[in-house]
Amino acid sequence: MLTHTVKQIVKFSEVDSLRVVWHGNYVRYFEDGREAFGKAYGLGYLDIYEHGLAVPLIDLHVNFKRVLEYGDEAVIETTFVDSPAAKLIFDYTIRSARHGHVVCTGRSTQVFMEPVSKELHITMPPFMEAWKKKWNISD
Amino acid sequence: MLTHTVKQIVKFSEVDSLRVVWHGNYVRYFEDGREAFGKAYGLGYLDIYEHGLAVPLIDLHVNFKRVLEYGDEAVIETTFVDSPAAKLIFDYTIRSARHGHVVCTGRSTQVFMEPVSKELHITMPPFMEAWKKKWNISD
Amino acid sequence: MLTHTVKQIVKFSEVDSLRVVWHGNYVRYFEDGREAFGKAYGLGYLDIYEHGLAVPLIDLHVNFKRVLEYGDEAVIETTFVDSPAAKLIFDYTIRSARHGHVVCTGRSTQVFMEPVSKELHITMPPFMEAWKKKWNISD
Amino acid sequence: MLTHTVKQIVKFSEVDSLRVVWHGNYVRYFEDGREAFGKAYGLGYLDIYEHGLAVPLIDLHVNFKRVLEYGDEAVIETTFVDSPAAKLIFDYTIRSARHGHVVCTGRSTQVFMEPVSKELHITMPPFMEAWKKKWNISD
Repeated sequence: MLTHTVKQIVKFSEVDSLRVVWHGNYVRYFEDGREAFGKAYGLGYLDIYEHGLAVPLIDLHVNFKRVLEYGDEAVIETTFVDSPAAKLIFDYTIRSARHGHVVCTGRSTQVFMEPVSKELHITMPPFMEAWKKKWNISD
Repeated sequence: MLTHTVKQIVKFSEVDSLRVVWHGNYVRYFEDGREAFGKAYGLGYLDIYEHGLAVPLIDLHVNFKRVLEYGDEAVIETTFVDSPAAKLIFDYTIRSARHGHVVCTGRSTQVFMEPVSKELHITMPPFMEAWKKKWNISD
Repeated sequence: MLTHTVKQIVKFSEVDSLRVVWHGNYVRYFEDGREAFGKAYGLGYLDIYEHGLAVPLIDLHVNFKRVLEYGDEAVIETTFVDSPAAKLIFDYTIRSARHGHVVCTGRSTQVFMEPVSKELHITMPPFMEAWKKKWNISD
Repeated sequence: MLTHTVKQIVKFSEVDSLRVVWHGNYVRYFEDGREAFGKAYGLGYLDIYEHGLAVPLIDLHVNFKRVLEYGDEAVIETTFVDSPAAKLIFDYTIRSARHGHVVCTGRSTQVFMEPVSKELHITMPPFMEAWKKKWNISD
């Protein structure tokens, strides 16, 4: 199971008038986690772009469990979810660095798209097959 | 079925390097739609706050169907989803003003919380019962 | 003097933990005002882009005078500042819709750039000369 | 001269359709730099808040020199600017980690405010005098 964890300071501008991280900012944290994963394992936006593809989200689910406050840090854990479909799926768990407990979980699903024609790939692109082989992931 | 529609110009700062609205900004559009609904039907954050309650999100689901470009407008339709539970549920449909097609759908679930003690209400608060009666909504 | 005014509801996500609009969001309001001006007078990003140019900011000044709260609206007044230089200058005044007083003022300066070569225009582009003639602006 | 430098990965959501960091996000980088300085020298929002004060911005100036792209990092240098007035002034220089050149400079001015009464301090608060003595800063 490929997973990667990154820490992120909660910014003042991310906190709302209830003095907790505004819910929409977790979507940003997910992308931060996904890109940190991508950097660690060679599957970032720019890596994928070099293979001529973009990976737009088609689905996003967020489950809010507790609040995160200014002064704390978000510990974002991103896990690759293997799937035989031509999709890129990640699971997220965000914890409070200060308290250790889970603040938020979620899942995002992306597809492989030609950036110009906007055409979607219906089978796993070859570079993804190679990437999965490299990291010993088999369906 | 209570529903409300509001139009929103796509901002330059909301568009990403693929020249479409960045996926996280739909969460903002949902809140815009929810607050416009709240203004129309007396169920906004400030209305609820007057009853001594905050309504944090516990769950959010977004389904991305098509892209929205700069120069276009988001037509955000927000629908109240009745539930016997002590929850506030809304469905969203965002359309492109220019093309008419659906760009994104979603659902948010909120709970009723005492802002200071952070205690959650496990039964529907009285003001919500009154609100539902006022708008002829019965479970 | 060309000026344009647009109203904008303060969003919950724009308000910080002091319960006022976070200062960085005024930069967004300025761009909203500038684009609303552009729509009214044919000088929006997309209009300029049709002439093969982008107009990146080179300078921004913001003067914060009072706070703007959730529940209020920002009344954004954008004024074209004529200049013989190859620059696009706008002045902004943001008022509280509720109280009428000035909340924030500012000025932005943009230059004309070829988007691909990134080369800057050192003289006013012809379409701007034509635009100024159309609106009876002469240096 | 007290100065502090912090590195920040450029986020995908911070980049606009011209594929460079959207100008308004530099205001966020300035606050990131200011808060990193505050953490290093004991002058963060929460430190100041412990002395019963908030420090709202009254003035902000940004000078944009070059662009910052996705895949790069912002190197944010924040410098305390001493002043006999009851103000908190910081200068910022943002560099591209990849190219080394300066991308953006700026200055912010904050005042000391009682968060409840919204009253401003017209003389330097005692804790600031103590802070300046601690770090050997004298006007």
